[in-house]
Amino acid sequence: MISGSEAMPHIALPEGLPGITSGFAFRPETARPMRELAEVLLRGANTLTRAEREMIATLVSDRNDCHFCQASHRAAAAHHLNGNYAVVDAVKRDFESAPISPKLKALLAIAAKVQQSGRQVTASDVAAARAAGACDTEIHDAVLIAAAFCMFNRYVDGLATFTPRDEDSYDQMGQRMARDGYAQRDADGAHHSS
Amino acid sequence: MISGSEAMPHIALPEGLPGITSGFAFRPETARPMRELAEVLLRGANTLTRAEREMIATLVSDRNDCHFCQASHRAAAAHHLNGNYAVVDAVKRDFESAPISPKLKALLAIAAKVQQSGRQVTASDVAAARAAGACDTEIHDAVLIAAAFCMFNRYVDGLATFTPRDEDSYDQMGQRMARDGYAQRDADGAHHSS
Repeated sequence: MISGSEAMPHIALPEGLPGITSGFAFRPETARPMRELAEVLLRGANTLTRAEREMIATLVSDRNDCHFCQASHRAAAAHHLNGNYAVVDAVKRDFESAPISPKLKALLAIAAKVQQSGRQVTASDVAAARAAGACDTEIHDAVLIAAAFCMFNRYVDGLATFTPRDEDSYDQMGQRMARDGYAQRDADGAHHSS
Repeated sequence: MISGSEAMPHIALPEGLPGITSGFAFRPETARPMRELAEVLLRGANTLTRAEREMIATLVSDRNDCHFCQASHRAAAAHHLNGNYAVVDAVKRDFESAPISPKLKALLAIAAKVQQSGRQVTASDVAAARAAGACDTEIHDAVLIAAAFCMFNRYVDGLATFTPRDEDSYDQMGQRMARDGYAQRDADGAHHSS
């Protein structure tokens, strides 16, 4: 038995599955496109690294106060950086002073605004990202990763899913996420993105 | 030329496409799962009617102040009700006093909390929905529709997509959404959900 939140989930989710995976198991019809969206956004071909994209996801999840998502994506980001949790935690604490590129800082600034409302993003936020070297697809993806985690976070917490509290669970989860990704798995262990 | 918002989109989106459709055209890789999620949630087999689900989407979009989404889903909901905009507007204004079922009111109360944060949903909100006749899948879907529109709304506004301002555009859009849904269209007009 993994230690976790005491509260019961709001609906009869399959037991023993942490966070979003219990919602996915409860409703495979909606799980499929949600998994595919995460796979494309966080792991698909992109000029942003997987670590950069996981850090955007972590920042937004942290600001939405979603423990499951911030802890698991924090660990995934760290595992894309050979276990370097320090840089991910620096981003969470204050991304402006974190040891990351000016381009990622500008994209995180946009993502942080999207977390509050899409309407907060200004032309000058976008101009700043472009001046720091971001292309339109990178700006698009920063907006959509932030928007998507406003969905994932609300889904996880709106159902009161089981939330492990020990760091080890998340470290192992992040390792699997960084290695295997978010696509659906067949019974034989093969995975596919749709 | 359709009249619309004066502001330019933040990135070079295809011209002449309103709202989310311009983001979808810009990035087909992410459009595919987002369209599929909308199709499953708002139109798939369900004990909630399509009108009820579109009203949940409308309420959340309105509270997120996303003009494109609230106006288009308001029209889609109305077209599922033989053009009855009055009931949809009553839901937007004050769903507790709207001429809708106690079950839908209880699900809208949950959705309204998810719009702010998943953590705001309480066991008693869920008990009230259950007492009004909602099953677990309906509660799950109310949470996820609300969460998904927190994504769609932020995507539409975070890119500053083209927003028509005339009612007629939305009435026609809603009619098409109610009739044809959200799945991708092939060049020959056939549509499929993946």
